[in-house]
Amino acid sequence: MAFNKRVKIKTILDESPIGSEVTLMGWVRTKRSNKNVSFIALNDGSIITNYQVVADPNVISEDILKNCATGACLKVTGKVVESMGAGQASELNATSIEILGKADPEKYPLQPKKHSLEFLREIAHLRIRTNTFGAVFRVRHALAFAVHKYFNDKGFFYIHTPIITASDAEGAGETFKVTTLDLKNPPLKEDGAIDYTEDFFERETNLTVSGQLEGELAALALSEIYTFGPTFRAENSNTARHLAEFWMIEPEMAFYDAEDNQDLAEDFLKYVIQYALDHCAEDLKFLDQRVAEEEKGKPQDQRSELGLLDKLKFVVENDFERLTYTEAIDILRNSKPNKKKKFAYLIDEWGADLQSEHERYLVEKHFKKPVILTDYPKEIKSFYMRQNEDGKTVAAMDILFPGIGEIVGGSQREERLDVLTQRMQEMNIPQDEMWWYLDTRRFGTTPHAGFGLGFERMVLFVTGMSNIRDVIAFPRTPGNAEF
Amino acid sequence: MAFNKRVKIKTILDESPIGSEVTLMGWVRTKRSNKNVSFIALNDGSIITNYQVVADPNVISEDILKNCATGACLKVTGKVVESMGAGQASELNATSIEILGKADPEKYPLQPKKHSLEFLREIAHLRIRTNTFGAVFRVRHALAFAVHKYFNDKGFFYIHTPIITASDAEGAGETFKVTTLDLKNPPLKEDGAIDYTEDFFERETNLTVSGQLEGELAALALSEIYTFGPTFRAENSNTARHLAEFWMIEPEMAFYDAEDNQDLAEDFLKYVIQYALDHCAEDLKFLDQRVAEEEKGKPQDQRSELGLLDKLKFVVENDFERLTYTEAIDILRNSKPNKKKKFAYLIDEWGADLQSEHERYLVEKHFKKPVILTDYPKEIKSFYMRQNEDGKTVAAMDILFPGIGEIVGGSQREERLDVLTQRMQEMNIPQDEMWWYLDTRRFGTTPHAGFGLGFERMVLFVTGMSNIRDVIAFPRTPGNAEF
Repeated sequence: MAFNKRVKIKTILDESPIGSEVTLMGWVRTKRSNKNVSFIALNDGSIITNYQVVADPNVISEDILKNCATGACLKVTGKVVESMGAGQASELNATSIEILGKADPEKYPLQPKKHSLEFLREIAHLRIRTNTFGAVFRVRHALAFAVHKYFNDKGFFYIHTPIITASDAEGAGETFKVTTLDLKNPPLKEDGAIDYTEDFFERETNLTVSGQLEGELAALALSEIYTFGPTFRAENSNTARHLAEFWMIEPEMAFYDAEDNQDLAEDFLKYVIQYALDHCAEDLKFLDQRVAEEEKGKPQDQRSELGLLDKLKFVVENDFERLTYTEAIDILRNSKPNKKKKFAYLIDEWGADLQSEHERYLVEKHFKKPVILTDYPKEIKSFYMRQNEDGKTVAAMDILFPGIGEIVGGSQREERLDVLTQRMQEMNIPQDEMWWYLDTRRFGTTPHAGFGLGFERMVLFVTGMSNIRDVIAFPRTPGNAEF
Repeated sequence: MAFNKRVKIKTILDESPIGSEVTLMGWVRTKRSNKNVSFIALNDGSIITNYQVVADPNVISEDILKNCATGACLKVTGKVVESMGAGQASELNATSIEILGKADPEKYPLQPKKHSLEFLREIAHLRIRTNTFGAVFRVRHALAFAVHKYFNDKGFFYIHTPIITASDAEGAGETFKVTTLDLKNPPLKEDGAIDYTEDFFERETNLTVSGQLEGELAALALSEIYTFGPTFRAENSNTARHLAEFWMIEPEMAFYDAEDNQDLAEDFLKYVIQYALDHCAEDLKFLDQRVAEEEKGKPQDQRSELGLLDKLKFVVENDFERLTYTEAIDILRNSKPNKKKKFAYLIDEWGADLQSEHERYLVEKHFKKPVILTDYPKEIKSFYMRQNEDGKTVAAMDILFPGIGEIVGGSQREERLDVLTQRMQEMNIPQDEMWWYLDTRRFGTTPHAGFGLGFERMVLFVTGMSNIRDVIAFPRTPGNAEF
């Protein structure tokens, strides 16, 4: 017999069907009682708002009411009536309450008081039940759906690129090994090296750092594709911006040059943020207030000029600033923090790699808006980026967001076989392992471009959270693979 | 300067803007020439249909036309005119053709002739450019989008469960190890065992076999969630139905019992298939013909009764047959192949695990429609499935599809802490490692359920392909991690 005869709290709040009898199911957030009545705030995760259940002790037994503690799961049937108090339009007069699952107030960790984000990270299996994390994960969902909807509406095809791979797109970056070998007694070759022909894939394999190269293969057949999948970095960086396992979105487009690529990336970012504004009003309002509270605790000069919602609207409504690396170097060289030697890395010469402090200066101090930096020196970028006419720079772009730094990295790809192979030779990238990548330049090559968006950085930006571990359900970081 | 000023072939076919000047970009599928005119069939991957470009040798130079060989990439500008021949409504009279990338006919492997699927698997980087694989990957995209749309429309939230994990949801199944240890000189403990505290996560980790357990955590906070991510099995099975890396969709729902779960799964499968029928008409028509051709090569008694499109419509339009394992055993015990000893595994007693041959008999011979088998003996199912009142069976369901076998496996989950922990004890599942899973039964537990759908099996079913390696771009199987 079907059990799921409830109405979601989101639905009842949207519709307020005064007079009708409904069944709600959800978890108790708080209970206030006096001898005449109990008020139970019920939440089912469908929306941040709790729904008020009114329980008359003449109708609902004392034993039941006693067990309606914070964290308990209830099935409540009753009549929707106009709400007496301020706030909500309606509330539920309970005619019956069933305790689906108790929560011992002595043991349940999520009692109604303020918990630190650090503490909640240790109980990541329960933190989803809090207002903050409920909001974060609903917004995360909306952003993920917006990504799929944006590309689908534009005629892009979603490609699942491999997670286990024998190649390494960046030519750098520490990777996780994937193996079924017995670590204690791995098979060895005559020269003492590990004999990977005995491994599951009969070769050395690792977790992917990017689906780009495979994405290009698909773009050079289907025109416009995107990936949205997990990627991995085995870097021992314990920062608020890095995860060992994170999700990336990587569109690749045949027939796009660097400018087309920039146009798409800007349009895409604005669409996704606007989608969240349109579909997550309650959650973003809550997170906006949360950020405002947090800001109050900061010294005056470190506070943001804009609140969360204002910041999101600002990004959607204004053009991103586009400038070349060369122009950026000029601005940075003549900037106050450079002249006053406030930068940890002073900008002296063209060719320097930009550090986070420089990116933040450009975005947060100089332009005060998202920035698309283009045409970087080829020496500091990957082999597959298209070389510009000047022989010095490549058609790369990084998109920098306030408070986040790099949110997108991309480029027009080098489609000319001779230029590509020469660059690979210069950078010691083995060409025989990449025969399939080079084949696309041998047969029917064409200008094409693409970019990668770190999904968690996008979620960070939109939710206003400050630690990337708080925007993915079960973060993977050095020393941490719990849950 | 933006390069992407083309019109997609899908758009021009939809709109046939007779008289307007347009630019197309795409790859040559075939070229037919006589001394008065060349006909170039151009494909850009946006749709299976090629668009006919008509090139007059008085307008387009001989040198250019020579290079418009199969596989070459072209930029063609011209005027859309009514088509003289049958088939398409319009064609393009080329005023200029630019060769974006050549394809040497001596070397390009995809010459216009029939290639075996086995051969195409070896050039998976190029096979996407064929009619068959273009269709497969467009349909795959549509199915993936339908999954997201279905759940989003219903208010489910997409959760990214971890890929690297220290737990093993099935309590079985071979897993891939994930490590950054030096395989040649791994750190050892005093007793000679590998010292995993030196590994990246400071413990032994592997690639996930299922996101279910983490999905349950989220469902018990947000009510209804789903996952859609890669999962892994390190099983050395070289079959047409198994991959080492595949994508799974796993919805988990608080407040659902076994029947609610079955209702959702059936509705979901029908929705996704109907979505493909509605959005992939050209591709499915092509694949339908492809399957029909393939069937012709089979002996009469092995041919399907229904063509691909008819089969898809049949599934959408008919109720799935629901019956218990116990009822199924009765049918099988009294079936002809059992009595005539045609089954490799004869069905003798209640409790036997069903083999593929039994599932196929039920689905393809007995009921001739999808079957939902429920209430299996607890001995052959996982620890987390809810025990029924009879003490012998659990509230499991498997959905079996013709030609595919098991496409969905799910259950109502055991929400009662005492029953769950007792079952874990019986099955030797360590409870201390699963403290977080048990916490959800300690605090605010509730009836809940969920299922897993192997996405590639769904793509197999809808495309009518017969080998699972042909429905994922770059398959991972024993000995194969190419591309």
